[in-house]
Amino acid sequence: MRNTFGSSVQVTLFGESHGTAIGAVVDGMAPGIRVDEEHIRARLALRRPQGSISTARKEPDAFSIVSGVYNGFTTGAPICILIPNTDTKSADYEAMRYLPRPGHADYTAYVKYSGFEDHRGGGHFSGRITAALVAAGSIAQDALAQKGVSIGTHIQSCAGISDAPFRDLEKETELLSKKAFAVIDDEAGERMKAAIESARADLDSVGGVLQTAVVGLPAGVGEPWFDTVEGVLSHALFSVPGVKGVSFGAGFGFADMRGSEANDAFYTENGTVKTKTNNNGGVNGGITNGMPILFSCAVKPTPSIGVPQQTVDMAKGENAQLIIHGRHDPAIIHRARAVVDGVTALALCDLLALRYGADWLGGEG
Amino acid sequence: MRNTFGSSVQVTLFGESHGTAIGAVVDGMAPGIRVDEEHIRARLALRRPQGSISTARKEPDAFSIVSGVYNGFTTGAPICILIPNTDTKSADYEAMRYLPRPGHADYTAYVKYSGFEDHRGGGHFSGRITAALVAAGSIAQDALAQKGVSIGTHIQSCAGISDAPFRDLEKETELLSKKAFAVIDDEAGERMKAAIESARADLDSVGGVLQTAVVGLPAGVGEPWFDTVEGVLSHALFSVPGVKGVSFGAGFGFADMRGSEANDAFYTENGTVKTKTNNNGGVNGGITNGMPILFSCAVKPTPSIGVPQQTVDMAKGENAQLIIHGRHDPAIIHRARAVVDGVTALALCDLLALRYGADWLGGEG
Amino acid sequence: MRNTFGSSVQVTLFGESHGTAIGAVVDGMAPGIRVDEEHIRARLALRRPQGSISTARKEPDAFSIVSGVYNGFTTGAPICILIPNTDTKSADYEAMRYLPRPGHADYTAYVKYSGFEDHRGGGHFSGRITAALVAAGSIAQDALAQKGVSIGTHIQSCAGISDAPFRDLEKETELLSKKAFAVIDDEAGERMKAAIESARADLDSVGGVLQTAVVGLPAGVGEPWFDTVEGVLSHALFSVPGVKGVSFGAGFGFADMRGSEANDAFYTENGTVKTKTNNNGGVNGGITNGMPILFSCAVKPTPSIGVPQQTVDMAKGENAQLIIHGRHDPAIIHRARAVVDGVTALALCDLLALRYGADWLGGEG
Amino acid sequence: MRNTFGSSVQVTLFGESHGTAIGAVVDGMAPGIRVDEEHIRARLALRRPQGSISTARKEPDAFSIVSGVYNGFTTGAPICILIPNTDTKSADYEAMRYLPRPGHADYTAYVKYSGFEDHRGGGHFSGRITAALVAAGSIAQDALAQKGVSIGTHIQSCAGISDAPFRDLEKETELLSKKAFAVIDDEAGERMKAAIESARADLDSVGGVLQTAVVGLPAGVGEPWFDTVEGVLSHALFSVPGVKGVSFGAGFGFADMRGSEANDAFYTENGTVKTKTNNNGGVNGGITNGMPILFSCAVKPTPSIGVPQQTVDMAKGENAQLIIHGRHDPAIIHRARAVVDGVTALALCDLLALRYGADWLGGEG
Repeated sequence: MRNTFGSSVQVTLFGESHGTAIGAVVDGMAPGIRVDEEHIRARLALRRPQGSISTARKEPDAFSIVSGVYNGFTTGAPICILIPNTDTKSADYEAMRYLPRPGHADYTAYVKYSGFEDHRGGGHFSGRITAALVAAGSIAQDALAQKGVSIGTHIQSCAGISDAPFRDLEKETELLSKKAFAVIDDEAGERMKAAIESARADLDSVGGVLQTAVVGLPAGVGEPWFDTVEGVLSHALFSVPGVKGVSFGAGFGFADMRGSEANDAFYTENGTVKTKTNNNGGVNGGITNGMPILFSCAVKPTPSIGVPQQTVDMAKGENAQLIIHGRHDPAIIHRARAVVDGVTALALCDLLALRYGADWLGGEG
Repeated sequence: MRNTFGSSVQVTLFGESHGTAIGAVVDGMAPGIRVDEEHIRARLALRRPQGSISTARKEPDAFSIVSGVYNGFTTGAPICILIPNTDTKSADYEAMRYLPRPGHADYTAYVKYSGFEDHRGGGHFSGRITAALVAAGSIAQDALAQKGVSIGTHIQSCAGISDAPFRDLEKETELLSKKAFAVIDDEAGERMKAAIESARADLDSVGGVLQTAVVGLPAGVGEPWFDTVEGVLSHALFSVPGVKGVSFGAGFGFADMRGSEANDAFYTENGTVKTKTNNNGGVNGGITNGMPILFSCAVKPTPSIGVPQQTVDMAKGENAQLIIHGRHDPAIIHRARAVVDGVTALALCDLLALRYGADWLGGEG
Repeated sequence: MRNTFGSSVQVTLFGESHGTAIGAVVDGMAPGIRVDEEHIRARLALRRPQGSISTARKEPDAFSIVSGVYNGFTTGAPICILIPNTDTKSADYEAMRYLPRPGHADYTAYVKYSGFEDHRGGGHFSGRITAALVAAGSIAQDALAQKGVSIGTHIQSCAGISDAPFRDLEKETELLSKKAFAVIDDEAGERMKAAIESARADLDSVGGVLQTAVVGLPAGVGEPWFDTVEGVLSHALFSVPGVKGVSFGAGFGFADMRGSEANDAFYTENGTVKTKTNNNGGVNGGITNGMPILFSCAVKPTPSIGVPQQTVDMAKGENAQLIIHGRHDPAIIHRARAVVDGVTALALCDLLALRYGADWLGGEG
Repeated sequence: MRNTFGSSVQVTLFGESHGTAIGAVVDGMAPGIRVDEEHIRARLALRRPQGSISTARKEPDAFSIVSGVYNGFTTGAPICILIPNTDTKSADYEAMRYLPRPGHADYTAYVKYSGFEDHRGGGHFSGRITAALVAAGSIAQDALAQKGVSIGTHIQSCAGISDAPFRDLEKETELLSKKAFAVIDDEAGERMKAAIESARADLDSVGGVLQTAVVGLPAGVGEPWFDTVEGVLSHALFSVPGVKGVSFGAGFGFADMRGSEANDAFYTENGTVKTKTNNNGGVNGGITNGMPILFSCAVKPTPSIGVPQQTVDMAKGENAQLIIHGRHDPAIIHRARAVVDGVTALALCDLLALRYGADWLGGEG
């Protein structure tokens, strides 16, 4: 297992779905960053289940900051955030102990951990762990905000329904941070919710695409060849459960463009170099060019569905049918956006610390 | 700069487009892997320019293995491969010293390196450096092949023209490794070449999508949360110049699926667990499930195009027009496939060494 | 801050002396290692203050394992161990807020963290944090023990008094693991204790040397050039507060030897290659040779002493006198031995996992 | 093998004693550092054999800088330095193929690499490789010098003969950098040389202790708990062949001190905080305190000696006698000092880049 990410700013995850608590340690954060527990609470709320379009498991996410924050500011020492688990129903999972759920990590964990894994509720592979990522990422988001960098994610599409595109990034990243269902066009959002409800009614689930904008990063961030902005962000983003694709700027749309259309022409305005278009999503040669970073994440439909599925009984070594009971999400995309924001913030803090030093993000930076 | 990738098996890149040589060091490779210089030569040939659909720069890629190989086998010590540059025309670039080419790393490198960067031919950011990745990756590919793992990449689409899909992965990965223009359907390939020629005639360029299959990996490889198969591969793949998107299995197609369609049902056949479909591209929860790994890379059109472009004169701080002379590729996708194969092989060797130990890939593994 | 150590097996530390809790996360441990909480308790007891030769602060070290252990075995997921702080007296430290204690990290932390550090009781730099290292290391020690590898440390010298040398390593490492005051010669131990008491009476403190033996490691472990056994172990050992020197085998005694005396001649016995002497401490060229690893750590006298000391008032920027009140150790060497054992075990697990794979240490290894 | 060291500034080693070339890649060095090839040559000369107190192998060390330097300055891209081997006599080693030399890495390499290692002249484990470390370190030393940081190493003792202690660090680090035999007291140096000659006459070898001073580092450098100044430096220093002990400040002398003697009292002078003594070698709590860093390395006698030795014939599996022919050093300590300087500089550049950012060391820093 490799549950630590980053080089200068590092995040370490721990915990299982049905253990006593989950949590994260963030190390390398500069001293002097103001930490507002309300912000963490607000971001955790964005990730929490939302009525009928989410699981019935209700976790209050009553986190505690165990270390690294003193008098309301980061100290420079590692920040441990602990989130207790309270609403666990392990009995739901006993019947499935040897029946790996299709699309989940049950089978691969069983092979990798030789049956020693805590299988209850997906154990360490549960989406539950992402609450710790959101809490850790929230501190990273605040650190970035104090340097003028904001991050916003919207549901670009869900169940075949598209949101309006980004138009005014600064305004929209701000707005999205306050919306429980992260769409620019609320009417499209209502149709998405209806589609999610409809999938739930069919004991099924839906997927979608998240699009994220990062505004305010300076030019010159990124460490090619290998620690490109795209490489580091995608590495982190594929940790978000359900993400199966990451693209920057025009992404897969580049396939059908010509260079004359795809290239972003430079111009200068009040001494600042900008590009007329932003097909490259703010990154050239793996390094930020000062334009907003834009990327998309494909999120697959939640694999936990109620319809009968084919699987293998690992104890008996024979084919079997599986009906998943328990509490599940007919879609996770509206919850995943908070995780994407947090993971993005953590990875960017790492790249910034590499370039500008450990203290740059802090009060004295 | 972070020019080293990997943890147990590490590759380090060095060199500039117009320096004396480029190269790579591969460290952590097990002792006892047979190294065939003919294979390296053959793979370098797949990356070399191909007549009218490529740049006119002709490099023989006459590499030498400086260290780490003895009597035809890896020794376990770091392998340094050196590839001299011969056909450099730096004068082409002097006129553009302060005119960053749109879509290239010229501007971001200028900001990041404060003007100290070797700008000639793109310097360290040149696609030329990928020859070293192909050579290093070739040894990784041979190591994997000796364990029954094969990698094959085809041009899934180019300039709007689609190749036939994979059907028989073992056969096709083998076939593709011998084709100069990596398509399954040669007729589609001819149309792609014509489209590339046409773009060249227009002083323009085209992009596309590469799709890669990895056959023969055992189940249980990958180190979540962060060093998932997807995270590690994408991190490496975004280092390939021009790659702007990476997706696994159904990728962005998941957005319009329901869970009942997306989930890959398990079944057992002769004691082996398999899945009926492979929408997840051989990876569940970031860990291989024993099915072939499938992923796609979006490749943008080559940014070097002959049509006039807008840019900024960095010396004067004012808007300017740029006309790129020199020798360039109207498409790189047919050359990039060899780089994708190599990078994939290096990243997989790292994950395998993490799981099974440093020697597993070797003669005694 | 870099509070994560290791590559394949990684330990992450967090916590402050006067915060709510301290702790550690161990990641990469193989699944299937039996975890005995009694062993952790016993090893924490070896680190706890011992009557009049230690501080009066009494912490029960009532740890909880938050994650990574299920049904008494490691799962392969990260193991978080949490140890609450209970007996904190922060008021002792307020008077010293701007008076850095000589020999401590107060001044350097003040510079590095710009005054944002939690200074109470040394904050994150307190020896208190080593309880988490001992707990984490205890699991590593058990993992090694299950593979036949044992670690034992004795107080080679303290306050100028020498212990008897190692004679029968297997027996003595076993014996030392049960002794509260880790000496081979108990009579020498009594004299050491008397010297510690005497220093306490003088409001002063004493230092010493710890010597450690590791028995049972296979030959071939270590990753030169840089991740040599000596390099990796010393890197970890210098994290133990007070350690100012690390040497292997004859160590600084090599300076006065000739090669003919220093070299350890090889011979074979029942098919096993051994050395007649062990001046190299079981390591040749940075790699284990199958003989016991032997190393020594110089431990400086506890810097917290009661006699008046000169320092600088950081608030006023002028010279000042400091008298340290509060509760302190007249020696830490008898407590540090448990930390050295734990740190050694963690570092060796990392090197073993690198060489033999992530699962080697586990039940199925 | 792990032949890459460092996190922000990374050095990668490659090559074998009897291969075509050895070399190093240094990555992460800031752009804009002036690179003077004369300095590299001068430092390589300090490492080269010196008449009758060294081996007869003569290598001109005619290095070439393959990448990363342009117009006399670092570019920010990885710097590859290549040093060809010319004076190799592999035949000397064929007779010893299966007779591991006591004190060398022959046996451990044979076990670790299963016989695939290039054994000629010690292969990748040869002291020859340190030429690349010196060349790479030379650039790091120049970068530090441009920031006012100087490094100097003297032979504190050799064959039982002691040098004079450091008195005036700034003057002496400067002086030592120009001395072929690095002693403060030249008369003591002559006696050391005579002792080395005498050992050679006896077909034997001698060891010693190197002491290093680093002057000019700012306070606040070092990343506890694990990446302490002591931990990072010792990790790197144990890579220098023959080093078996590393201590800081009073080192093992702390064992017999009391706290009141060992603690370094603070005082302020012209607004700068200093310590009256420097027993802690410039490091408190793993972080620099602004005083000079002082450390010592124990260097064992060269293991290659001419007297007959006992070993094991690995091909026959039986005890055997070994007489080493070939060309060897009766002492390496006078050559190792240049390696210690270089390794120290590389490790410090890494810590500085972590704290102050990737560009701090450069022209624009």
